[in-house]
Amino acid sequence: MSASSPTITHPSFGRMPADRVIIFDTTLRDGEQSPGFSMNLAEKLRMAEALAALGVDVIEAGFPVASKGDFESVHQIAQHTKGAVICALARSGGAKDIAAAGEALAPAERKRIHNFISTSPLHMKYKLRMEPETVLDLITTGNTAARNLTDDVEWSAEDGSRTEPDFLCRCVEAAIKAGATTINIPDTVGYATPEDMERIFSMLLARVPGADQVIFSAHNHNDLGLGVANTLASVRGGARQIECTINGIGERAGNAALEEIVMALRTRHDQYPFTTGIHTESLLKVSRMLATITSFDVQPNKAIVGRNAFAHESGIHQDGVLKNAATYEIMTPESVGWTRSSLIMGKHSGRAAFRDKLKALGYGDLDDAKLNDAFARFKDLADKKKAVYDEDIVALVDDEVRDNEHIRFGSLSLTSCSGKPSTVTLSLTIDGATVETDATGNGPVDAAFNALRSAFPHEARLALFSVGAVTEGTDAQARTTVRLEEDGKMVDGQGADADTVVSAVRAYVHALNKLLVKRTRAEPEALGV
Amino acid sequence: MSASSPTITHPSFGRMPADRVIIFDTTLRDGEQSPGFSMNLAEKLRMAEALAALGVDVIEAGFPVASKGDFESVHQIAQHTKGAVICALARSGGAKDIAAAGEALAPAERKRIHNFISTSPLHMKYKLRMEPETVLDLITTGNTAARNLTDDVEWSAEDGSRTEPDFLCRCVEAAIKAGATTINIPDTVGYATPEDMERIFSMLLARVPGADQVIFSAHNHNDLGLGVANTLASVRGGARQIECTINGIGERAGNAALEEIVMALRTRHDQYPFTTGIHTESLLKVSRMLATITSFDVQPNKAIVGRNAFAHESGIHQDGVLKNAATYEIMTPESVGWTRSSLIMGKHSGRAAFRDKLKALGYGDLDDAKLNDAFARFKDLADKKKAVYDEDIVALVDDEVRDNEHIRFGSLSLTSCSGKPSTVTLSLTIDGATVETDATGNGPVDAAFNALRSAFPHEARLALFSVGAVTEGTDAQARTTVRLEEDGKMVDGQGADADTVVSAVRAYVHALNKLLVKRTRAEPEALGV
Repeated sequence: MSASSPTITHPSFGRMPADRVIIFDTTLRDGEQSPGFSMNLAEKLRMAEALAALGVDVIEAGFPVASKGDFESVHQIAQHTKGAVICALARSGGAKDIAAAGEALAPAERKRIHNFISTSPLHMKYKLRMEPETVLDLITTGNTAARNLTDDVEWSAEDGSRTEPDFLCRCVEAAIKAGATTINIPDTVGYATPEDMERIFSMLLARVPGADQVIFSAHNHNDLGLGVANTLASVRGGARQIECTINGIGERAGNAALEEIVMALRTRHDQYPFTTGIHTESLLKVSRMLATITSFDVQPNKAIVGRNAFAHESGIHQDGVLKNAATYEIMTPESVGWTRSSLIMGKHSGRAAFRDKLKALGYGDLDDAKLNDAFARFKDLADKKKAVYDEDIVALVDDEVRDNEHIRFGSLSLTSCSGKPSTVTLSLTIDGATVETDATGNGPVDAAFNALRSAFPHEARLALFSVGAVTEGTDAQARTTVRLEEDGKMVDGQGADADTVVSAVRAYVHALNKLLVKRTRAEPEALGV
Repeated sequence: MSASSPTITHPSFGRMPADRVIIFDTTLRDGEQSPGFSMNLAEKLRMAEALAALGVDVIEAGFPVASKGDFESVHQIAQHTKGAVICALARSGGAKDIAAAGEALAPAERKRIHNFISTSPLHMKYKLRMEPETVLDLITTGNTAARNLTDDVEWSAEDGSRTEPDFLCRCVEAAIKAGATTINIPDTVGYATPEDMERIFSMLLARVPGADQVIFSAHNHNDLGLGVANTLASVRGGARQIECTINGIGERAGNAALEEIVMALRTRHDQYPFTTGIHTESLLKVSRMLATITSFDVQPNKAIVGRNAFAHESGIHQDGVLKNAATYEIMTPESVGWTRSSLIMGKHSGRAAFRDKLKALGYGDLDDAKLNDAFARFKDLADKKKAVYDEDIVALVDDEVRDNEHIRFGSLSLTSCSGKPSTVTLSLTIDGATVETDATGNGPVDAAFNALRSAFPHEARLALFSVGAVTEGTDAQARTTVRLEEDGKMVDGQGADADTVVSAVRAYVHALNKLLVKRTRAEPEALGV
């Protein structure tokens, strides 16, 4: 049923079992180059660390010749990120490209140069304006040059899925002869079907001399919603490397999503008997880190990492899951980093489930009175709200904690005139004592936050500030989110008020209280807050 | 290669060609029941109208027995929405369910009752707590009762993809005998692979007596990212109805996305030789309507309808598309309702392309001086900004229009004290004259908007207000969006300022100016603004 690649000895990974699939992450290259997803050097380094910790085998860190910034990020990642092979992109026909890639990668423990050139009739004619024989020559030149710099060389046939089969075989043969150890056949434009991808890899493995000595790789885009299916079909056809991105970000409709592919391989191991090195319990954490860095949240209904991915709304589904989670869950929320299905906390949930949930969220030490009080408020909320999320529960309990221990919002008055600094007087209760502070700032919110920082000095960085969409008729209150970051810890605070400035201050105070709780409390093991 | 359903005579659609696939939209049922996506009656009616205009064959409008609200929306849609078959959900075992469905559907020109019951071992044992023979009886009862109320009866085997094959055949046979005319095999939990789905439908068509007299239907969820691929594989296996939702909303990771399936069938007609009745040019419009109603935007990298779906960021891709769009585009942006690829407007774009773009956006009548001015500002923006979207261009030109014709923000001063109404003094220039207004409101933003409404009275409804995520280091300005609605016209205004209140007022003024322009200008034919 599935073609199998032979067991080969790979320059970076050594002896590879035939069922091991290499995860090649291109979040920092193909993902980062899509509009709105660019990252700065520090952000790329953070992501690279997280990807290595996730168990990614290869990190494509950038395209060094493209810009100074790209060169520098590849160089820094090559220097600092341990554990994964670091890869840099280069054009097969660009002598400078390959030199730049080699130079940027120099500090890496294990490095890969990934060179590419288009091979489809359309791309050769209109984009490259080259004859096929010239392209073949450049494949040889590029791979030879790359192989002189490292033993781990990847070559990609850009627009490979639309390349004429005989010519594709000749190209792949040339790349292998010139020293490529991984051969990638991208579906650059997201046009392929699963049947196409399986056929292409089977054909290459059957026809190209030397094919049994290299790893074939799939790189699928999602323009027709088929990115994951095409990737799985490629593996069926014999590919043993998968190129993908966190949250499926990437050019146009994005690349195949790492988290979906990995969980499909794991959940349907009966049909796709392959393994990866990914620590799946960290998928949610890395997804959220990327969302924070790029300021783009995934959709609520994004598979695996979306807020609703494990939430069940309809009474029928809820009922089923309460009776037996397997009725509607094909993988456990915990296996990808959630604490547990959001569903479990609904109006049907009992006190025991509520206590378990609190424990999972890091609030296992509440005394009975506080627990009872929180449980009553939870029941009240569950009656009003269709779905009770983890963060709602944290807010309930945080209120408890906050009421007794830390900072409370009192009142705020402000005067502001466009073009001049705003002035704010903020009153807070800190550990029971009232503190009043004046501050100015660039607009009312900035002034209010300055007052907060002055009333309660702290080092946390304001990482994000947003006001959720407020639609007339449903909820007249502005719901603000403030994200604070301190020593790698990150907390979100929410505030709701008809007054947007008050809503912002409440959110900041909420986040600050959570941060203080985090300082004194053991970290909850799982995410999901 | 593809199993083919025979040409049958359908109670609602008459004689069906073997290559025609029925599009069954469940945005208002399976989509609406997911957390955060609920809609009120008026919103459901608007969506139903839009779906009918899109060319959807069947609209699943709700689950009448579930609540009074659901009953009422099905009833109203049955009464008002013409063109599509209106469908209501009911449990096979619920006598009340089927009666309620029939009653709610009474006013419809063409109506379908869709009854379902679980058939998998897991669901029968834990959820239903029923023996298989009882389930078989209820299939007969349910379909008989439904068929007494309408000739168009659908039956679904809930968790069908995990049902034991022999038992599934018996269930389907019982449903057909009792009068079902459409047989749906949902992959309720999103567990199936394309291979599973193709095999299940092929098997049913080969084994079940009477299978050649009904339409088989696929209903796939996206938990492993395989919703679209599973749907296409189902059609290959013989299914001729597809259940799907706009934007892929739905339980957990959502349902297969209508727009992706339809465009996959169209783009890869060579491999999937099937047709639908969807007017693809309206896909973007309907997607955006749903996003507006539910306040959940699709991700930028959502296939077909995401903001980046046709945007090309990297220099290499941009260059390719400029030389020949087919190098990186497998379908035209126009075919799904975009005006044209966002790419076309980059720093490489010339004056002719810019003029074409303006024309497409409804600004074809600018004189040369204004055009030159706008073009210069566009070039300036393209240098600074990685991607220039249609709305950026509209903003550029709107500035032109606004400068000469309508409302401009002047200044704003405010005093506010939490717990008391805020007071604002707003100064605007309206058609050249300065207008100063005082107003109060529930917080600074509310007060400022009240001042605006008083300075320039208008009927438009504030449909949405949000402040985009602001992250430290990238952009200290708050970027606000205000959406105004008037007589079904909808405009978004953007404002940016370090002061969030000023940013909000700028966004409101921007939206108002666009609305005024819309009033005096012919509507642009295409969307994309």
